Amino acid sequence: MTAVLDTQVLPPVGVRAGAFGNATHLACRACGAQSPLGPFYACMECFGPLEVGYDFPRVTRAQIEAGPKSIWRYAPLLPVPADIATFRSTDPGFTRLVDAGNLAADLGLRKLHVKDDSGNPTHSFKDRVVAVALSAARELGLNVLACPSTGNLANAVAAAAARAGIRSVVLVPSNLEQQKIIASAVYDTTLIAIEGNYDDVNKLASEIAGEEEGWAFVNVNVRPYYAEGSKTLAYEIAEQLGWRLPDQLVIPVASGSQLTKIDKGFSELIKLGLVEDKPVRIFGAQATGCSPIVQAYEAGQDVVAPVRPNTIAKSLAIGNPADGPYVLDVVRRTGGRIADVDDETVVRNILRLARTEGIFGETAGGVTVGVTAKLIADGDLDPDGETVIINSGDGLKTLDAVAGHVGPKTTIPPRYEAFTDFWKGYTA
Amino acid sequence: MTAVLDTQVLPPVGVRAGAFGNATHLACRACGAQSPLGPFYACMECFGPLEVGYDFPRVTRAQIEAGPKSIWRYAPLLPVPADIATFRSTDPGFTRLVDAGNLAADLGLRKLHVKDDSGNPTHSFKDRVVAVALSAARELGLNVLACPSTGNLANAVAAAAARAGIRSVVLVPSNLEQQKIIASAVYDTTLIAIEGNYDDVNKLASEIAGEEEGWAFVNVNVRPYYAEGSKTLAYEIAEQLGWRLPDQLVIPVASGSQLTKIDKGFSELIKLGLVEDKPVRIFGAQATGCSPIVQAYEAGQDVVAPVRPNTIAKSLAIGNPADGPYVLDVVRRTGGRIADVDDETVVRNILRLARTEGIFGETAGGVTVGVTAKLIADGDLDPDGETVIINSGDGLKTLDAVAGHVGPKTTIPPRYEAFTDFWKGYTA
Repeated sequence: MTAVLDTQVLPPVGVRAGAFGNATHLACRACGAQSPLGPFYACMECFGPLEVGYDFPRVTRAQIEAGPKSIWRYAPLLPVPADIATFRSTDPGFTRLVDAGNLAADLGLRKLHVKDDSGNPTHSFKDRVVAVALSAARELGLNVLACPSTGNLANAVAAAAARAGIRSVVLVPSNLEQQKIIASAVYDTTLIAIEGNYDDVNKLASEIAGEEEGWAFVNVNVRPYYAEGSKTLAYEIAEQLGWRLPDQLVIPVASGSQLTKIDKGFSELIKLGLVEDKPVRIFGAQATGCSPIVQAYEAGQDVVAPVRPNTIAKSLAIGNPADGPYVLDVVRRTGGRIADVDDETVVRNILRLARTEGIFGETAGGVTVGVTAKLIADGDLDPDGETVIINSGDGLKTLDAVAGHVGPKTTIPPRYEAFTDFWKGYTA
Repeated sequence: MTAVLDTQVLPPVGVRAGAFGNATHLACRACGAQSPLGPFYACMECFGPLEVGYDFPRVTRAQIEAGPKSIWRYAPLLPVPADIATFRSTDPGFTRLVDAGNLAADLGLRKLHVKDDSGNPTHSFKDRVVAVALSAARELGLNVLACPSTGNLANAVAAAAARAGIRSVVLVPSNLEQQKIIASAVYDTTLIAIEGNYDDVNKLASEIAGEEEGWAFVNVNVRPYYAEGSKTLAYEIAEQLGWRLPDQLVIPVASGSQLTKIDKGFSELIKLGLVEDKPVRIFGAQATGCSPIVQAYEAGQDVVAPVRPNTIAKSLAIGNPADGPYVLDVVRRTGGRIADVDDETVVRNILRLARTEGIFGETAGGVTVGVTAKLIADGDLDPDGETVIINSGDGLKTLDAVAGHVGPKTTIPPRYEAFTDFWKGYTA
């Protein structure tokens, strides 16, 4: 409604026209007050979280299909300029939607697809959100791309900044595993080790974001733009299904942003007439060792009490999830649910996904497959409904989770007789 | 020439019509004698290596562009059935061709693209060749997919077999790093550790391939089909350039098969009228610690003397490269060259690719970028020519190579003043 707009909603001085495409303003998710498109992330009225609002033109399937094979094919639906594909980014997205017949049979589902985001440039869905945050940073004249992280986000920020030719700073706990440090430091990011845990790192990041000029902490001060990147998962799923919506989805939940943005993406496609309107039931998946939203869901509450994470699913280990209340709203409104599985089940389901579909997901993938099985057993997921699950990251980054659970079937000397002796017994 | 066909060239009994698409026979690369399409890999006349021959129909750009976003869009040009996309495979290929402006500037090239095959399902180009081998195995009624390997190939075979629902067996040296064992074993392959080095493993694989019925060792008895998968790199590069050929390519060389098949792929596109005929100079890249083809090239010889590999670029460490003579032929015929760089240069160039383009390649990528720089310095590569280099695998699989070379810029307590103290000095 234009009536509620006031002069604040003009973009900051120096930002070019069309910098944010068809986005028109930021709106508070709590009180609805509008703010201008800028480096803002908290409502000026009530300090609530901000979300990007749009005035979409007509967008056609053909127009999208003629676009680049990356998230930029959906540029008209994102807070990015129309010429976004001419800037250097990692061009993430348009990952495989795998028709997962083997896993479907194993789980007892009629039709299942795995949206495999391990195919992104740094092998997690974070490349999507970082690419949109990078565009916002560029358009706002911010010249340092930064984040607090323990893994996927750090990889994505460091790689995107390298490709864009801008400076990046990644803050990590100093006790982070050496291999995770290498996988970000290789991009020549300014990696700063902080003597403390992830909460300490996060707090310091917010302080720097508040004090320093010109910094874009992707998940702090440009978070409203960043979060919009997850909508592309919804767009791709619909397009890859032949411009149809599935019946039900199971989505891993950390902050909860991905789940709420997939719901938002589907709504936008319906409003734009790009897909037929139909109910889509949305389910969330957490690890038992960090399941604050599940606890709120089961207690019938609207607010989420923070927990101290203790799970091998590190990429989902956010004890105080920013989008918790919105996740509760989406799963309740769509007839879904949010559920959890323990770490042993996570490992078993990483292996199940690999064994059935040849997809080696990270721990979050194990959480999602495990919760899918639980939802079927509990009668919550319809076995005849067309189902999509998200694999948000890559098993190569969480090898420790499965070490000790898999290995050689035998060790033999390099002689044919040794082989045949083993093989006869093995296949008997 | 139909005249040289004899009755042997009929396919084996039980193989369905069209099992190998437009492929018509196997031809010896040494003496030219023809063999039927079957599980054959050595010429019955002279024991030379066999290659797939075709009788292509008319194939159009539009037909290809309407196909799946995987190597199967090129099905009419591969030894696979027309309905290949209906079978379960990992659907590899159609990876990014990155317009690498930053790296181009750093190297002093006018126009450079990186074909980034780390985007494949198991993050190396091996997914391409294994997918074609899997099709051949299925059509020939072979029911075990197998390989000797120390890394990428094992991942690709185990994942492809899992997805296809057939048994796989992977033979590895028993002293292989635990993380490489995990990354294959996770797919529930029958991983057999062999007490010996890679040569011992390879020898045992050949013995099993010769003795056991029903086994498809992808790089042994179905090698002619397997090798054809690399042609898809050429097809994709041409299509992604807008149906044009580049002026020059730099390609990593292990067995040499990829390089020779890219050359073959370009020739086919020209013959089919899908691209304009023009000279393409092809360059090969090896690590100094395993550079038998470079040694032959520099000595002006046509045969390649085996070496004992000693390099961190394990995925290129084949001391007795099967396609050595054919690589020499291609680089000489096209006005290219094959060159090598030492391990220290490999590490520096892994970091160069990551720093400039946000692409974390494995050691083979470092070899290729390093050799590219060397070829420019030596005046062999034209700085004004449009250049493509291949990144064949993923840095997450060779973290050890860069460990000790990158890390945090500092370690500080979680306080804002500690940060500003560091930052002032760092940016001064």
